[in-house]
Amino acid sequence: MVKKCAAECIGTFWLVFGGCGSAVLAAAFTAEAAKIGGNTLFPLGIGLVGVSLAFGLTVMTMAYAIGHISGCHLNPAVSFGLWAAKRFNGAELLPYIGAQVAGGILGAVVLYIIAAGQPGFSLAPNGLAVNGFGDLSPGGYGLIAGFVAEFVLTFMFLIVIVGSTDRRAPAGFAPVPIGLALTLIHLIGIPVTNVSVNPARSLGPALIVALFGGGTQAIAQVWLFWLAPILGAVAAGGLYLALFTEPKIATEPSLVD
Amino acid sequence: MVKKCAAECIGTFWLVFGGCGSAVLAAAFTAEAAKIGGNTLFPLGIGLVGVSLAFGLTVMTMAYAIGHISGCHLNPAVSFGLWAAKRFNGAELLPYIGAQVAGGILGAVVLYIIAAGQPGFSLAPNGLAVNGFGDLSPGGYGLIAGFVAEFVLTFMFLIVIVGSTDRRAPAGFAPVPIGLALTLIHLIGIPVTNVSVNPARSLGPALIVALFGGGTQAIAQVWLFWLAPILGAVAAGGLYLALFTEPKIATEPSLVD
Amino acid sequence: MVKKCAAECIGTFWLVFGGCGSAVLAAAFTAEAAKIGGNTLFPLGIGLVGVSLAFGLTVMTMAYAIGHISGCHLNPAVSFGLWAAKRFNGAELLPYIGAQVAGGILGAVVLYIIAAGQPGFSLAPNGLAVNGFGDLSPGGYGLIAGFVAEFVLTFMFLIVIVGSTDRRAPAGFAPVPIGLALTLIHLIGIPVTNVSVNPARSLGPALIVALFGGGTQAIAQVWLFWLAPILGAVAAGGLYLALFTEPKIATEPSLVD
Amino acid sequence: MVKKCAAECIGTFWLVFGGCGSAVLAAAFTAEAAKIGGNTLFPLGIGLVGVSLAFGLTVMTMAYAIGHISGCHLNPAVSFGLWAAKRFNGAELLPYIGAQVAGGILGAVVLYIIAAGQPGFSLAPNGLAVNGFGDLSPGGYGLIAGFVAEFVLTFMFLIVIVGSTDRRAPAGFAPVPIGLALTLIHLIGIPVTNVSVNPARSLGPALIVALFGGGTQAIAQVWLFWLAPILGAVAAGGLYLALFTEPKIATEPSLVD
Repeated sequence: MVKKCAAECIGTFWLVFGGCGSAVLAAAFTAEAAKIGGNTLFPLGIGLVGVSLAFGLTVMTMAYAIGHISGCHLNPAVSFGLWAAKRFNGAELLPYIGAQVAGGILGAVVLYIIAAGQPGFSLAPNGLAVNGFGDLSPGGYGLIAGFVAEFVLTFMFLIVIVGSTDRRAPAGFAPVPIGLALTLIHLIGIPVTNVSVNPARSLGPALIVALFGGGTQAIAQVWLFWLAPILGAVAAGGLYLALFTEPKIATEPSLVD
Repeated sequence: MVKKCAAECIGTFWLVFGGCGSAVLAAAFTAEAAKIGGNTLFPLGIGLVGVSLAFGLTVMTMAYAIGHISGCHLNPAVSFGLWAAKRFNGAELLPYIGAQVAGGILGAVVLYIIAAGQPGFSLAPNGLAVNGFGDLSPGGYGLIAGFVAEFVLTFMFLIVIVGSTDRRAPAGFAPVPIGLALTLIHLIGIPVTNVSVNPARSLGPALIVALFGGGTQAIAQVWLFWLAPILGAVAAGGLYLALFTEPKIATEPSLVD
Repeated sequence: MVKKCAAECIGTFWLVFGGCGSAVLAAAFTAEAAKIGGNTLFPLGIGLVGVSLAFGLTVMTMAYAIGHISGCHLNPAVSFGLWAAKRFNGAELLPYIGAQVAGGILGAVVLYIIAAGQPGFSLAPNGLAVNGFGDLSPGGYGLIAGFVAEFVLTFMFLIVIVGSTDRRAPAGFAPVPIGLALTLIHLIGIPVTNVSVNPARSLGPALIVALFGGGTQAIAQVWLFWLAPILGAVAAGGLYLALFTEPKIATEPSLVD
Repeated sequence: MVKKCAAECIGTFWLVFGGCGSAVLAAAFTAEAAKIGGNTLFPLGIGLVGVSLAFGLTVMTMAYAIGHISGCHLNPAVSFGLWAAKRFNGAELLPYIGAQVAGGILGAVVLYIIAAGQPGFSLAPNGLAVNGFGDLSPGGYGLIAGFVAEFVLTFMFLIVIVGSTDRRAPAGFAPVPIGLALTLIHLIGIPVTNVSVNPARSLGPALIVALFGGGTQAIAQVWLFWLAPILGAVAAGGLYLALFTEPKIATEPSLVD
């Protein structure tokens, strides 16, 4: 269990440091492009495509690196959804979520240390790529749109996770669709809520922003990014179990997927 | 059959919600980039590369998630093409297409709900990423260019689908080339017709735009996005069957691919 | 042999139509972004990243679709390189190259038909994404830089092809590194020569530009895009054979890879 | 051993030529987009997303091409990290690192030859995509931020490498997460240090810039890009060995992974 928690902590560190880090450090990076004259700035930054890729690749790389150790959830909603699909032991929910939350906070801390190394850095209320709705939504989307988006996107994330790790699916490939599903989810939803679908990813940056003087607006909204993803994940896990799981085989005691 | 139709409906929901959603919500998103001064906007949005990735990833993620349940067509043209290649039972065509159309409409509805959560939202005739030619073509391409593009792109999509699920091809990999073929198709063709190659993907958004006050221009052009993709798909399925299928082995009763 | 040539022709059609098509139709596409005011155009187009992805994905998708039929060379330089590495029968070189050239011309024709469907279209000397140096180089690079780039890039392309289809490499994966190697090659070299590494890809567009009134500048430079890629490919095939192939096993008559 | 060193040299050549080449030749490429008027330049260049993809794809393509020959380290830090994880023989460290350094220098030389073929080219202190901090950092990040970033990013790179080549991980897939981990690392860190995580990648360009008149600023900072990556890699290799390796099985003499 120590090994599993260490793996979940390292993996969630990678998800938050890498995903949010790409957004904070590289999304809107510009440079003077010599060829087009000194007063025009080339949009070198990775934009939302790059941030989407980064989030997905944190999960894909970790799934191959530590999937054989902890299953590589990196996300309380994923742990809840797998539990609802009867793929994960409920007794392990709490230690897993604790390790994920710790990893997410650690990721936000290390990101803060690096980001602060740029001259002129200051921590804004929406700094460290926090999630939010209303004023904190990148596109100004409201609470209902945010809730629907987080619920639906996490629901579909779990469908991909539970389906691609079904033993009728091709073996060994699951990290590819799972990681790229997270990329896809970010391609859709960043303007709405900055995309959470992961309570640990929301908590870490919001907490560090509040602790280091960026304000408490994000932490005050973090409840939505626990509620909606977990509800969506449990709904998807339950649906897959009820609708798509083969009755007899799925209850064999040796099933691990 | 209920399971198969449920899977096709969920999968086509994901294709339309995710693909069109990325276009509507994130394609042209901008933000004031602090470093380059408040009056210059950084093109953070995912652009056509991001939309192309999103469409392809909806199919790739679903192919691993539900391929073992329904085969993951998500597209009436694909169902027709596989039928022409003798890989799909004609008796299942109608229920599959019904489920796909329902999923496409559902995807457009949920997308509409979220998009409407942004202040100042209004539904334009080309809203929800509808397909079209002439005035509705993103680049102003005419009817003939649109028809040729949709026919050729769907033809090649089916060559990839039928070829990569041939049992002489490496097992387990097919979702990767199939999903990325849809990405490639969008990289080529969005300026021409916004890319359909999928009648269900065209119908859903066009219908919702018409129902919610965006006008009937898209729904009036939707016939082309049923005709051209299905013709292209059937031609490709028939060609592969005639040219590339090994005669004896391919008619064994146990062939499933 | 008819089957193999048909597959090579369809595949090279896809490479030229898809790769050059993405460049011609979608690379620099712009749209008025409502949010940023009517007089500012959002760079929606796929840029060189999208074109690079498109070229690579044509090869990856075809390698899974027709690899089991013809080996999916789609490129005279690849056929020559595989011959130099003793992986391909010299007697098949001419029919393969003929089919590839035919496919490349067909791809350019269909692309021209679609591109001409946009109001205001006219065929420039560098239209249809032709390759070139000097005035025809996107970045104005000269003949020597062009030759070195094409030689080195094709050399490394063949190292990837021959190495990843070595039977000591993991089975079934080769289309992924081969396709993405072509993407990588385009990420590096488009500004230099627009990237050929493929004589058939250079000939088709240059010929159609000349035939339909765009001028003969590209066709006059096409010799370099036959010479440099084939030399680079043969050098790489020979090097791999001499240096990395296991002596005994590699000469077994049953070796197919 | 000659074969292994030749493979490492060719592979590291590809990493530096391809990765740095994409940055130098294509990152900020612009073109006049006909549709938007002659005085507006379209940002066609690949930006940091394209450069990140390029670096990752050099490793992924080589890992499939030469992984069966040398293990495809292409990076002194990787060799050190694998040695710390008891996956690599310490006696091979020096020849491997020598071959990697030679390949990196060769890559920078060939890149210089091609880049110099553009009219108006001149070698700047930050030319050839050198790594650096302070004035040489693309975003002006200081020494501490640079050290932390290089240490943490290399640490996580090695966790992915050691974990995904663990024999409990799915066989054959490792080049995908390893290559894409390098892409992810660049998506995060280019603005900080231009991303090294690889001493050979830092030395080659810095040396050629110094030799060909671009100045010695980069070579004077190259120590950090040997120290931080190797420390991070050794820490990760040691941690994985201590924490995640199964005690008995991992010490079997036949273990190769």
